[in-house]
Amino acid sequence: MFDKIAIFGVGLIGGSFALALKKAGAVREVAGVGRSAPVLARARALGIIDRACGSAAEAVAGADLVLIAAPVAQTGAILSSILPHLEAGTVVTDAGSTKCDVVAAAREALGERIAQFVPGHPIAGREQNGPDAALDDLYIGKKAVLTPLPENRTEDVERVGAAWRACGAIIHRLTAEEHDKVFAAVSHLPHLLAYALVDDIARKPHADLLFQYAASGFRDFTRIAGSSPEMWRDISLANRAALLAELDAYMLQLGAVRERLAAADGAALEAVYANAQHARQNWVRTIEAAEKQNRQGGD
Amino acid sequence: MFDKIAIFGVGLIGGSFALALKKAGAVREVAGVGRSAPVLARARALGIIDRACGSAAEAVAGADLVLIAAPVAQTGAILSSILPHLEAGTVVTDAGSTKCDVVAAAREALGERIAQFVPGHPIAGREQNGPDAALDDLYIGKKAVLTPLPENRTEDVERVGAAWRACGAIIHRLTAEEHDKVFAAVSHLPHLLAYALVDDIARKPHADLLFQYAASGFRDFTRIAGSSPEMWRDISLANRAALLAELDAYMLQLGAVRERLAAADGAALEAVYANAQHARQNWVRTIEAAEKQNRQGGD
Repeated sequence: MFDKIAIFGVGLIGGSFALALKKAGAVREVAGVGRSAPVLARARALGIIDRACGSAAEAVAGADLVLIAAPVAQTGAILSSILPHLEAGTVVTDAGSTKCDVVAAAREALGERIAQFVPGHPIAGREQNGPDAALDDLYIGKKAVLTPLPENRTEDVERVGAAWRACGAIIHRLTAEEHDKVFAAVSHLPHLLAYALVDDIARKPHADLLFQYAASGFRDFTRIAGSSPEMWRDISLANRAALLAELDAYMLQLGAVRERLAAADGAALEAVYANAQHARQNWVRTIEAAEKQNRQGGD
Repeated sequence: MFDKIAIFGVGLIGGSFALALKKAGAVREVAGVGRSAPVLARARALGIIDRACGSAAEAVAGADLVLIAAPVAQTGAILSSILPHLEAGTVVTDAGSTKCDVVAAAREALGERIAQFVPGHPIAGREQNGPDAALDDLYIGKKAVLTPLPENRTEDVERVGAAWRACGAIIHRLTAEEHDKVFAAVSHLPHLLAYALVDDIARKPHADLLFQYAASGFRDFTRIAGSSPEMWRDISLANRAALLAELDAYMLQLGAVRERLAAADGAALEAVYANAQHARQNWVRTIEAAEKQNRQGGD
Protein backbone atom coordinates (compact mmCIF):
# COMPACT_ATOMS: atom_id res chain seq x y z
CA MET A 1 0.00 0.00 0.00
CA PHE A 2 2.83 2.40 0.94
CA ASP A 3 6.18 2.26 -0.79
CA LYS A 4 8.00 4.45 1.74
CA ILE A 5 6.96 5.97 5.03
CA ALA A 6 9.11 8.39 7.01
CA ILE A 7 8.70 8.64 10.78
CA PHE A 8 10.01 11.54 12.85
CA GLY A 9 10.22 10.20 16.39
CA VAL A 10 10.67 6.43 16.62
CA GLY A 11 9.41 5.91 20.19
CA LEU A 12 6.21 4.35 21.47
CA ILE A 13 3.80 6.09 19.08
CA GLY A 14 5.88 6.25 15.91
CA GLY A 15 7.45 2.86 16.54
CA SER A 16 4.11 1.15 17.09
CA PHE A 17 2.78 2.75 13.89
CA ALA A 18 5.73 1.32 11.93
CA LEU A 19 5.49 -2.13 13.50
CA ALA A 20 1.73 -2.31 12.87
CA LEU A 21 2.08 -1.30 9.21
CA LYS A 22 4.87 -3.81 8.72
CA LYS A 23 2.85 -6.57 10.33
CA ALA A 24 -0.06 -5.70 8.02
CA GLY A 25 2.29 -5.85 5.01
CA ALA A 26 1.23 -2.29 4.24
CA VAL A 27 4.66 -0.70 3.78
CA ARG A 28 7.82 -1.58 1.86
CA GLU A 29 10.30 0.71 3.62
CA VAL A 30 10.25 2.74 6.82
CA ALA A 31 12.77 5.57 7.23
CA GLY A 32 13.32 6.98 10.70
CA VAL A 33 14.54 10.31 12.03
CA GLY A 34 15.23 11.01 15.68
CA ARG A 35 17.03 13.41 17.96
CA SER A 36 19.40 10.75 19.23
CA ALA A 37 21.58 8.36 17.24
CA PRO A 38 21.42 5.57 19.88
CA VAL A 39 17.60 5.66 19.88
CA LEU A 40 17.55 5.48 16.09
CA ALA A 41 20.01 2.58 16.18
CA ARG A 42 17.82 0.83 18.73
CA ALA A 43 14.74 1.33 16.54
CA ARG A 44 16.62 -0.19 13.64
CA ALA A 45 17.80 -3.13 15.75
CA LEU A 46 14.19 -3.75 16.83
CA GLY A 47 13.04 -3.80 13.19
CA ILE A 48 10.93 -0.67 13.63
CA ILE A 49 12.74 1.22 10.89
CA ASP A 50 14.66 -0.02 7.88
CA ARG A 51 16.83 3.05 7.57
CA ALA A 52 18.10 5.51 10.17
CA CYS A 53 18.27 8.89 8.46
CA GLY A 54 20.56 11.70 9.49
CA SER A 55 18.53 14.34 7.65
CA ALA A 56 14.97 15.23 6.81
CA ALA A 57 15.99 15.33 3.13
CA GLU A 58 17.02 11.67 3.15
CA ALA A 59 13.96 10.60 5.14
CA VAL A 60 11.25 12.29 3.09
CA ALA A 61 12.72 11.70 -0.39
CA GLY A 62 10.18 9.58 -2.24
CA ALA A 63 7.97 9.11 0.84
CA ASP A 64 4.24 8.50 0.35
CA LEU A 65 3.53 9.40 3.95
CA VAL A 66 5.37 11.19 6.73
CA LEU A 67 4.35 10.75 10.37
CA ILE A 68 5.53 13.23 12.99
CA ALA A 69 5.45 11.43 16.34
CA ALA A 70 7.55 13.80 18.44
CA PRO A 71 6.56 16.03 21.39
CA VAL A 72 4.03 18.55 20.05
CA ALA A 73 6.26 21.55 20.71
CA GLN A 74 8.68 20.24 18.06
CA THR A 75 6.09 19.97 15.29
CA GLY A 76 6.83 23.37 13.75
CA ALA A 77 10.60 22.85 13.65
CA ILE A 78 10.25 19.39 12.15
CA LEU A 79 7.84 20.64 9.48
CA SER A 80 10.25 23.48 8.64
CA SER A 81 13.04 20.94 8.20
CA ILE A 82 10.84 18.88 5.90
CA LEU A 83 9.46 21.71 3.73
CA PRO A 84 12.46 22.21 1.40
CA HIS A 85 12.38 18.49 0.54
CA LEU A 86 8.63 17.95 0.52
CA GLU A 87 7.56 16.35 -2.76
CA ALA A 88 4.16 17.09 -4.26
CA GLY A 89 2.96 13.50 -3.82
CA THR A 90 3.82 13.23 -0.12
CA VAL A 91 1.19 13.53 2.63
CA VAL A 92 2.34 14.58 6.10
CA THR A 93 0.44 13.77 9.27
CA ASP A 94 1.15 13.86 13.00
CA ALA A 95 0.26 12.04 16.19
CA GLY A 96 0.19 15.01 18.52
CA SER A 97 -2.11 15.03 21.54
CA THR A 98 -3.17 18.63 20.82
CA LYS A 99 -4.38 19.93 17.50
CA CYS A 100 -5.05 23.70 17.46
CA ASP A 101 -1.42 24.51 18.22
CA VAL A 102 -0.18 21.87 15.79
CA VAL A 103 -2.36 23.33 13.04
CA ALA A 104 -1.08 26.83 13.83
CA ALA A 105 2.53 25.61 13.77
CA ALA A 106 1.92 23.74 10.54
CA ARG A 107 0.38 26.78 8.84
CA GLU A 108 3.34 28.86 9.98
CA ALA A 109 5.91 26.28 8.84
CA LEU A 110 4.35 25.04 5.61
CA GLY A 111 2.66 28.18 4.28
CA GLU A 112 1.03 27.47 0.94
CA ARG A 113 1.92 23.77 1.20
CA ILE A 114 -0.43 23.40 4.19
CA ALA A 115 -2.84 21.28 2.11
CA GLN A 116 -0.32 18.43 2.34
CA PHE A 117 -0.62 18.28 6.14
CA VAL A 118 -3.48 16.20 7.62
CA PRO A 119 -3.53 16.55 11.45
CA GLY A 120 -4.18 13.40 13.45
CA HIS A 121 -4.13 11.92 16.94
CA PRO A 122 -4.18 8.21 17.71
CA ILE A 123 -5.81 7.61 21.11
CA ALA A 124 -3.46 5.00 22.49
CA GLY A 125 -0.58 4.94 24.88
CA ARG A 126 1.35 3.08 27.52
CA GLU A 127 3.21 4.07 30.65
CA GLN A 128 6.52 3.22 28.93
CA ASN A 129 8.22 5.31 26.29
CA GLY A 130 10.86 4.83 23.62
CA PRO A 131 11.31 2.27 20.84
CA ASP A 132 11.42 -0.65 23.28
CA ALA A 133 7.86 0.18 24.33
CA ALA A 134 6.53 0.01 20.75
CA LEU A 135 3.95 -2.71 20.06
CA ASP A 136 2.56 -3.90 16.73
CA ASP A 137 -0.92 -4.19 18.27
CA LEU A 138 -1.01 -0.88 20.17
CA TYR A 139 -3.66 0.62 17.89
CA ILE A 140 -5.97 -2.34 17.40
CA GLY A 141 -9.52 -1.27 18.23
CA LYS A 142 -8.32 2.18 19.31
CA LYS A 143 -9.58 5.49 17.92
CA ALA A 144 -7.48 7.55 15.52
CA VAL A 145 -8.90 11.07 15.41
CA LEU A 146 -8.29 13.09 12.26
CA THR A 147 -8.93 16.83 12.28
CA PRO A 148 -8.69 17.63 8.56
CA LEU A 149 -8.12 21.16 7.31
CA PRO A 150 -10.35 22.88 4.75
CA GLU A 151 -7.35 22.80 2.38
CA ASN A 152 -6.81 19.04 2.58
CA ARG A 153 -7.65 16.96 -0.50
CA THR A 154 -10.11 14.15 0.19
CA GLU A 155 -7.70 11.53 -1.14
CA ASP A 156 -4.90 12.75 1.16
CA VAL A 157 -7.15 12.50 4.22
CA GLU A 158 -8.12 9.05 3.01
CA ARG A 159 -4.46 8.05 2.66
CA VAL A 160 -3.79 8.94 6.30
CA GLY A 161 -6.98 7.18 7.38
CA ALA A 162 -6.00 4.06 5.44
CA ALA A 163 -2.64 3.91 7.24
CA TRP A 164 -4.28 4.06 10.66
CA ARG A 165 -6.92 1.54 9.61
CA ALA A 166 -4.10 -0.78 8.52
CA CYS A 167 -2.79 -0.46 12.10
CA GLY A 168 -6.18 -1.67 13.35
CA ALA A 169 -7.48 1.74 14.45
CA ILE A 170 -10.97 3.16 13.95
CA ILE A 171 -11.11 6.56 12.27
CA HIS A 172 -13.00 9.44 13.90
CA ARG A 173 -13.22 13.06 12.75
CA LEU A 174 -13.43 16.20 14.86
CA THR A 175 -12.47 19.82 14.29
CA ALA A 176 -9.19 20.81 15.94
CA GLU A 177 -11.15 22.97 18.42
CA GLU A 178 -13.54 20.16 19.35
CA HIS A 179 -10.59 17.81 19.74
CA ASP A 180 -8.71 20.09 22.10
CA LYS A 181 -11.72 20.77 24.34
CA VAL A 182 -12.59 17.09 24.56
CA PHE A 183 -9.07 15.98 25.41
CA ALA A 184 -8.52 18.79 27.89
CA ALA A 185 -11.41 17.30 29.87
CA VAL A 186 -10.84 13.56 29.58
CA SER A 187 -7.06 13.36 29.24
CA HIS A 188 -5.05 16.51 29.91
CA LEU A 189 -6.80 17.49 33.14
CA PRO A 190 -6.60 13.96 34.62
CA HIS A 191 -2.87 13.93 33.88
CA LEU A 192 -2.38 17.28 35.60
CA LEU A 193 -4.44 16.11 38.60
CA ALA A 194 -2.49 12.88 38.95
CA TYR A 195 0.89 14.59 38.63
CA ALA A 196 -0.17 17.24 41.17
CA LEU A 197 -1.32 14.63 43.68
CA VAL A 198 1.82 12.49 43.54
CA ASP A 199 4.06 15.56 43.68
CA ASP A 200 2.09 16.82 46.69
CA ILE A 201 2.44 13.52 48.54
CA ALA A 202 6.11 13.13 47.62
CA ARG A 203 6.88 16.54 49.15
CA LYS A 204 5.28 15.77 52.51
CA PRO A 205 7.70 15.02 55.37
CA HIS A 206 6.10 11.60 55.96
CA ALA A 207 6.00 10.67 52.26
CA ASP A 208 7.64 7.29 52.88
CA LEU A 209 4.93 6.26 55.33
CA LEU A 210 2.23 7.41 52.93
CA PHE A 211 3.63 5.52 49.96
CA GLN A 212 4.01 2.42 52.13
CA TYR A 213 0.24 2.20 52.54
CA ALA A 214 -0.78 3.32 49.08
CA ALA A 215 -2.53 0.40 47.41
CA SER A 216 -4.02 -0.68 44.09
CA GLY A 217 -6.57 2.15 43.96
CA PHE A 218 -3.78 4.70 44.28
CA ARG A 219 -1.73 2.84 41.73
CA ASP A 220 -4.46 3.01 39.09
CA PHE A 221 -5.38 6.59 39.98
CA THR A 222 -1.78 7.72 39.48
CA ARG A 223 -0.77 5.50 36.57
CA ILE A 224 -0.87 8.47 34.20
CA ALA A 225 1.58 10.32 36.47
CA GLY A 226 4.14 7.80 35.20
CA SER A 227 3.95 9.42 31.75
CA SER A 228 6.72 11.51 30.22
CA PRO A 229 7.00 14.90 32.01
CA GLU A 230 8.45 16.56 28.92
CA MET A 231 5.62 15.35 26.70
CA TRP A 232 2.97 16.44 29.19
CA ARG A 233 4.60 19.80 29.79
CA ASP A 234 4.32 20.38 26.05
CA ILE A 235 0.73 19.16 25.90
CA SER A 236 -0.26 21.31 28.88
CA LEU A 237 1.25 24.41 27.32
CA ALA A 238 -0.03 23.63 23.84
CA ASN A 239 -3.61 23.24 25.07
CA ARG A 240 -3.29 25.79 27.85
CA ALA A 241 -6.52 27.73 27.31
CA ALA A 242 -8.78 24.67 27.19
CA LEU A 243 -6.90 23.00 30.05
CA LEU A 244 -7.19 26.11 32.26
CA ALA A 245 -10.92 26.21 31.58
CA GLU A 246 -11.31 22.56 32.60
CA LEU A 247 -9.07 23.01 35.65
CA ASP A 248 -11.08 26.01 36.80
CA ALA A 249 -14.33 24.10 36.42
CA TYR A 250 -12.86 21.23 38.41
CA MET A 251 -11.57 23.50 41.18
CA LEU A 252 -15.08 24.96 41.49
CA GLN A 253 -16.45 21.43 41.70
CA LEU A 254 -13.89 20.53 44.39
CA GLY A 255 -14.87 23.63 46.34
CA ALA A 256 -18.52 22.58 46.19
CA VAL A 257 -17.69 19.04 47.29
CA ARG A 258 -15.54 20.47 50.08
CA GLU A 259 -18.50 22.48 51.37
CA ARG A 260 -20.65 19.38 51.47
CA LEU A 261 -17.95 17.49 53.34
CA ALA A 262 -17.31 20.35 55.78
CA ALA A 263 -21.05 20.52 56.46
CA ALA A 264 -21.11 16.73 57.00
CA ASP A 265 -23.90 16.63 54.41
CA GLY A 266 -23.85 12.90 53.75
CA ALA A 267 -26.81 12.93 51.36
CA ALA A 268 -25.25 15.64 49.17
CA LEU A 269 -21.86 13.87 49.14
CA GLU A 270 -23.49 10.57 48.29
CA ALA A 271 -25.36 12.24 45.41
CA VAL A 272 -22.02 13.28 43.84
CA TYR A 273 -20.48 9.86 44.40
CA ALA A 274 -23.54 7.99 43.14
CA ASN A 275 -23.86 10.14 40.02
CA ALA A 276 -20.18 9.52 39.27
CA GLN A 277 -20.45 5.78 39.85
CA HIS A 278 -23.55 5.58 37.68
CA ALA A 279 -22.02 7.60 34.84
CA ARG A 280 -18.83 5.58 34.94
CA GLN A 281 -20.67 2.27 34.95
CA ASN A 282 -22.67 3.35 31.88
CA TRP A 283 -19.50 4.49 30.16
CA VAL A 284 -17.60 1.27 30.90
CA ARG A 285 -20.55 -0.78 29.63
CA THR A 286 -20.58 1.25 26.42
CA ILE A 287 -16.86 0.94 25.73
CA GLU A 288 -16.83 -2.74 26.61
CA ALA A 289 -19.69 -3.34 24.17
CA ALA A 290 -17.80 -1.37 21.50
CA GLU A 291 -14.60 -3.32 22.15
CA LYS A 292 -16.50 -6.58 21.84
CA GLN A 293 -17.98 -5.43 18.54
CA ASN A 294 -14.52 -4.39 17.28
CA ARG A 295 -13.10 -7.79 18.12
CA GLN A 296 -15.92 -9.32 16.11
CA GLY A 297 -14.88 -7.31 13.08
CA GLY A 298 -17.37 -4.44 13.11
CA ASP A 299 -16.37 -0.83 13.52
CA MET B 1 -7.62 -22.87 64.30
CA PHE B 2 -11.07 -21.26 64.71
CA ASP B 3 -14.10 -23.26 65.69
CA LYS B 4 -16.64 -20.60 64.82
CA ILE B 5 -16.36 -17.21 63.20
CA ALA B 6 -19.24 -14.77 62.86
CA ILE B 7 -19.25 -12.23 60.05
CA PHE B 8 -21.47 -9.16 59.99
CA GLY B 9 -21.62 -8.12 56.34
CA VAL B 10 -21.06 -10.97 53.88
CA GLY B 11 -20.02 -8.91 50.86
CA LEU B 12 -16.64 -8.48 49.19
CA ILE B 13 -14.59 -7.93 52.35
CA GLY B 14 -16.33 -10.25 54.79
CA GLY B 15 -17.00 -12.86 52.12
CA SER B 16 -13.38 -12.93 50.98
CA PHE B 17 -12.25 -13.28 54.61
CA ALA B 18 -14.52 -16.31 55.04
CA LEU B 19 -13.49 -17.92 51.76
CA ALA B 20 -9.79 -17.44 52.50
CA LEU B 21 -10.07 -18.94 56.00
CA LYS B 22 -12.03 -21.88 54.64
CA LYS B 23 -9.49 -22.46 51.89
CA ALA B 24 -6.74 -22.41 54.52
CA GLY B 25 -8.68 -24.92 56.60
CA ALA B 26 -8.57 -22.42 59.45
CA VAL B 27 -12.24 -22.39 60.43
CA ARG B 28 -14.87 -25.02 61.16
CA GLU B 29 -18.01 -22.92 60.88
CA VAL B 30 -18.81 -19.47 59.54
CA ALA B 31 -21.99 -17.75 60.66
CA GLY B 32 -23.22 -14.76 58.68
CA VAL B 33 -25.42 -11.79 59.49
CA GLY B 34 -26.59 -9.25 56.94
CA ARG B 35 -29.15 -6.57 56.37
CA SER B 36 -30.83 -8.46 53.55
CA ALA B 37 -32.10 -12.04 53.51
CA PRO B 38 -31.44 -12.52 49.76
CA VAL B 39 -27.78 -11.45 50.17
CA LEU B 40 -27.36 -13.84 53.10
CA ALA B 41 -28.93 -16.63 51.07
CA ARG B 42 -26.60 -15.86 48.18
CA ALA B 43 -23.57 -15.96 50.51
CA ARG B 44 -24.73 -19.35 51.76
CA ALA B 45 -25.25 -20.63 48.22
CA LEU B 46 -21.71 -19.50 47.33
CA GLY B 47 -20.27 -21.39 50.30
CA ILE B 48 -19.13 -18.20 52.01
CA ILE B 49 -21.13 -18.86 55.16
CA ASP B 50 -22.37 -22.11 56.64
CA ARG B 51 -25.25 -20.56 58.51
CA ALA B 52 -27.36 -17.47 57.78
CA CYS B 53 -28.30 -15.99 61.12
CA GLY B 54 -31.34 -13.84 61.77
CA SER B 55 -29.95 -12.40 64.99
CA ALA B 56 -26.69 -11.26 66.52
CA ALA B 57 -27.36 -13.64 69.42
CA GLU B 58 -27.39 -16.68 67.14
CA ALA B 59 -24.33 -15.50 65.21
CA VAL B 60 -21.99 -14.73 68.10
CA ALA B 61 -22.94 -17.64 70.39
CA GLY B 62 -19.78 -19.67 70.84
CA ALA B 63 -17.81 -17.61 68.31
CA ASP B 64 -14.01 -17.37 68.69
CA LEU B 65 -13.89 -14.35 66.44
CA VAL B 66 -16.39 -11.82 65.10
CA LEU B 67 -15.61 -9.71 62.03
CA ILE B 68 -17.64 -6.60 61.31
CA ALA B 69 -17.37 -5.96 57.58
CA ALA B 70 -20.20 -3.47 57.10
CA PRO B 71 -20.10 0.24 56.16
CA VAL B 72 -18.24 2.02 58.97
CA ALA B 73 -21.25 4.10 60.02
CA GLN B 74 -22.99 0.89 61.12
CA THR B 75 -20.20 -0.30 63.42
CA GLY B 76 -21.68 1.17 66.60
CA ALA B 77 -25.15 -0.26 66.02
CA ILE B 78 -23.75 -3.70 65.19
CA LEU B 79 -21.55 -3.71 68.30
CA SER B 80 -24.55 -2.69 70.42
CA SER B 81 -26.50 -5.60 69.00
CA ILE B 82 -23.62 -7.95 69.82
CA LEU B 83 -22.90 -6.73 73.36
CA PRO B 84 -25.71 -8.53 75.25
CA HIS B 85 -24.56 -11.84 73.72
CA LEU B 86 -20.80 -11.28 73.78
CA GLU B 87 -19.08 -14.15 75.54
CA ALA B 88 -15.87 -13.59 77.50
CA GLY B 89 -13.80 -15.71 75.14
CA THR B 90 -14.86 -13.94 71.94
CA VAL B 91 -12.66 -11.38 70.16
CA VAL B 92 -14.34 -8.84 67.90
CA THR B 93 -12.57 -7.05 65.06
CA ASP B 94 -13.61 -4.96 62.10
CA ALA B 95 -12.54 -4.19 58.55
CA GLY B 96 -13.47 -0.53 58.44
CA SER B 97 -11.53 1.91 56.27
CA THR B 98 -11.43 4.47 59.08
CA LYS B 99 -10.32 3.79 62.62
CA CYS B 100 -10.69 6.81 64.97
CA ASP B 101 -14.46 6.91 64.48
CA VAL B 102 -14.72 3.13 64.74
CA VAL B 103 -12.78 3.18 68.01
CA ALA B 104 -15.03 5.96 69.35
CA ALA B 105 -18.15 4.06 68.32
CA ALA B 106 -16.79 0.87 69.86
CA ARG B 107 -15.99 2.58 73.17
CA GLU B 108 -19.49 4.03 73.22
CA ALA B 109 -21.15 0.71 72.35
CA LEU B 110 -19.03 -1.72 74.32
CA GLY B 111 -18.15 0.32 77.41
CA GLU B 112 -16.13 -1.76 79.81
CA ARG B 113 -16.01 -4.67 77.32
CA ILE B 114 -13.89 -2.55 74.94
CA ALA B 115 -10.83 -4.76 75.56
CA GLN B 116 -12.49 -7.44 73.43
CA PHE B 117 -12.50 -5.21 70.36
CA VAL B 118 -9.33 -5.14 68.21
CA PRO B 119 -9.71 -2.59 65.37
CA GLY B 120 -8.41 -3.61 61.96
CA HIS B 121 -8.37 -2.67 58.29
CA PRO B 122 -7.39 -5.01 55.45
CA ILE B 123 -5.95 -3.01 52.54
CA ALA B 124 -7.63 -4.78 49.67
CA GLY B 125 -10.58 -4.16 47.44
CA ARG B 126 -12.18 -4.53 44.07
CA GLU B 127 -14.51 -2.45 41.98
CA GLN B 128 -17.30 -4.98 42.54
CA ASN B 129 -19.24 -5.42 45.74
CA GLY B 130 -21.42 -8.07 47.31
CA PRO B 131 -20.93 -11.78 47.97
CA ASP B 132 -20.46 -12.58 44.28
CA ALA B 133 -17.36 -10.36 44.26
CA ALA B 134 -15.72 -12.28 47.15
CA LEU B 135 -12.44 -14.07 46.31
CA ASP B 136 -10.50 -16.57 48.40
CA ASP B 137 -7.21 -14.94 47.32
CA LEU B 138 -8.20 -11.28 47.79
CA TYR B 139 -5.85 -10.79 50.75
CA ILE B 140 -2.79 -12.71 49.60
CA GLY B 141 0.25 -10.47 49.91
CA LYS B 142 -1.92 -7.51 50.98
CA LYS B 143 -1.48 -5.51 54.18
CA ALA B 144 -3.84 -5.94 57.12
CA VAL B 145 -3.42 -2.95 59.45
CA LEU B 146 -4.28 -3.46 63.11
CA THR B 147 -4.68 -0.43 65.38
CA PRO B 148 -4.80 -2.12 68.81
CA LEU B 149 -6.19 -0.34 71.84
CA PRO B 150 -4.28 0.04 75.11
CA GLU B 151 -6.93 -2.20 76.68
CA ASN B 152 -6.45 -5.10 74.24
CA ARG B 153 -4.83 -8.28 75.53
CA THR B 154 -1.78 -9.34 73.52
CA GLU B 155 -3.27 -12.75 72.80
CA ASP B 156 -6.47 -11.21 71.44
CA VAL B 157 -4.51 -8.98 69.06
CA GLU B 158 -2.54 -12.06 68.06
CA ARG B 159 -5.76 -13.99 67.39
CA VAL B 160 -6.95 -11.35 64.95
CA GLY B 161 -3.51 -11.19 63.36
CA ALA B 162 -3.45 -14.96 62.96
CA ALA B 163 -6.78 -14.90 61.12
CA TRP B 164 -5.54 -12.32 58.61
CA ARG B 165 -2.25 -14.16 58.20
CA ALA B 166 -4.23 -17.31 57.43
CA CYS B 167 -5.89 -15.28 54.64
CA GLY B 168 -2.42 -14.54 53.25
CA ALA B 169 -2.18 -10.96 54.53
CA ILE B 170 0.83 -9.26 56.10
CA ILE B 171 0.19 -7.64 59.48
CA HIS B 172 1.07 -3.98 60.07
CA ARG B 173 0.41 -1.86 63.14
CA LEU B 174 -0.42 1.82 63.36
CA THR B 175 -2.24 3.97 65.87
CA ALA B 176 -5.80 4.84 64.84
CA GLU B 177 -4.72 8.47 64.33
CA GLU B 178 -1.77 7.53 62.13
CA HIS B 179 -3.98 5.20 60.16
CA ASP B 180 -6.60 7.83 59.45
CA LYS B 181 -4.09 10.47 58.34
CA VAL B 182 -2.28 8.05 56.06
CA PHE B 183 -5.44 6.77 54.39
CA ALA B 184 -6.94 10.24 54.02
CA ALA B 185 -3.94 11.04 51.83
CA VAL B 186 -3.47 7.88 49.79
CA SER B 187 -7.01 6.52 49.58
CA HIS B 188 -9.84 8.76 50.74
CA LEU B 189 -8.71 11.89 48.90
CA PRO B 190 -8.09 10.04 45.60
CA HIS B 191 -11.60 8.58 45.83
CA LEU B 192 -13.11 12.01 46.40
CA LEU B 193 -11.10 13.45 43.49
CA ALA B 194 -12.13 10.68 41.12
CA TYR B 195 -15.81 10.90 42.08
CA ALA B 196 -15.71 14.69 41.72
CA LEU B 197 -14.16 14.50 38.26
CA VAL B 198 -16.58 11.95 36.83
CA ASP B 199 -19.56 13.78 38.34
CA ASP B 200 -18.28 17.05 36.85
CA ILE B 201 -17.90 15.54 33.39
CA ALA B 202 -21.23 13.71 33.57
CA ARG B 203 -23.01 17.00 34.29
CA LYS B 204 -21.59 18.84 31.28
CA PRO B 205 -23.97 19.34 28.36
CA HIS B 206 -21.58 17.51 26.00
CA ALA B 207 -20.89 14.65 28.41
CA ASP B 208 -21.64 11.99 25.77
CA LEU B 209 -18.98 13.40 23.42
CA LEU B 210 -16.47 13.57 26.27
CA PHE B 211 -17.05 10.00 27.40
CA GLN B 212 -16.79 8.83 23.80
CA TYR B 213 -13.14 9.90 23.67
CA ALA B 214 -12.14 8.96 27.20
CA ALA B 215 -9.53 6.22 26.94
CA SER B 216 -7.52 3.84 29.09
CA GLY B 217 -5.80 6.60 31.10
CA PHE B 218 -9.20 7.98 32.11
CA ARG B 219 -10.43 4.50 32.86
CA ASP B 220 -7.62 3.80 35.32
CA PHE B 221 -7.79 7.29 36.82
CA THR B 222 -11.50 6.88 37.55
CA ARG B 223 -11.60 3.20 38.48
CA ILE B 224 -12.08 4.09 42.16
CA ALA B 225 -15.13 6.19 41.21
CA GLY B 226 -16.79 2.84 40.49
CA SER B 227 -16.74 2.07 44.25
CA SER B 228 -19.83 2.01 46.44
CA PRO B 229 -21.15 5.58 47.00
CA GLU B 230 -22.72 4.61 50.32
CA MET B 231 -19.48 3.15 51.64
CA TRP B 232 -17.44 6.15 50.54
CA ARG B 233 -19.98 8.61 51.91
CA ASP B 234 -19.53 6.91 55.27
CA ILE B 235 -15.73 6.85 55.01
CA SER B 236 -15.63 10.52 53.98
CA LEU B 237 -17.76 11.55 56.93
CA ALA B 238 -16.02 9.22 59.37
CA ASN B 239 -12.60 10.62 58.47
CA ARG B 240 -13.83 14.13 57.74
CA ALA B 241 -11.19 16.13 59.62
CA ALA B 242 -8.20 14.33 58.09
CA LEU B 243 -9.82 14.27 54.65
CA LEU B 244 -10.57 18.00 54.76
CA ALA B 245 -6.94 18.68 55.70
CA GLU B 246 -5.70 16.63 52.74
CA LEU B 247 -8.25 18.17 50.38
CA ASP B 248 -7.22 21.69 51.42
CA ALA B 249 -3.55 20.86 50.88
CA TYR B 250 -4.37 19.47 47.45
CA MET B 251 -6.46 22.50 46.47
CA LEU B 252 -3.51 24.73 47.40
CA GLN B 253 -1.28 22.53 45.26
CA LEU B 254 -3.72 22.77 42.35
CA GLY B 255 -3.79 26.53 42.72
CA ALA B 256 0.01 26.62 42.53
CA VAL B 257 0.06 24.37 39.47
CA ARG B 258 -2.64 26.53 37.89
CA GLU B 259 -0.46 29.62 38.32
CA ARG B 260 2.42 27.89 36.59
CA LEU B 261 0.16 26.85 33.74
CA ALA B 262 -1.43 30.29 33.43
CA ALA B 263 2.06 31.85 33.31
CA ALA B 264 3.07 29.29 30.64
CA ASP B 265 6.01 28.42 32.89
CA GLY B 266 7.02 25.19 31.22
CA ALA B 267 10.06 24.56 33.40
CA ALA B 268 8.06 24.90 36.62
CA LEU B 269 5.29 22.66 35.30
CA GLU B 270 7.80 20.06 34.16
CA ALA B 271 9.41 20.12 37.62
CA VAL B 272 6.07 19.09 39.19
CA TYR B 273 5.44 16.42 36.57
CA ALA B 274 9.00 15.05 36.76
CA ASN B 275 9.01 14.93 40.56
CA ALA B 276 5.72 13.03 40.46
CA GLN B 277 6.92 10.62 37.80
CA HIS B 278 10.15 9.99 39.70
CA ALA B 279 8.38 9.44 43.04
CA ARG B 280 5.84 7.12 41.47
CA GLN B 281 8.50 5.09 39.67
CA ASN B 282 10.41 4.63 42.93
CA TRP B 283 7.22 3.62 44.71
CA VAL B 284 6.19 1.13 42.03
CA ARG B 285 9.66 -0.41 42.09
CA THR B 286 9.45 -0.78 45.88
CA ILE B 287 6.02 -2.40 45.91
CA GLU B 288 6.89 -4.68 43.00
CA ALA B 289 10.00 -5.85 44.85
CA ALA B 290 7.90 -6.44 47.99
CA GLU B 291 5.27 -8.36 46.01
CA LYS B 292 7.98 -10.52 44.49
CA GLN B 293 9.40 -11.25 47.93
CA ASN B 294 5.93 -12.11 49.25
CA ARG B 295 5.34 -14.55 46.42
CA GLN B 296 8.62 -16.19 47.34
CA GLY B 297 7.37 -16.74 50.87
CA GLY B 298 9.04 -13.93 52.78
CA ASP B 299 7.15 -11.17 54.49
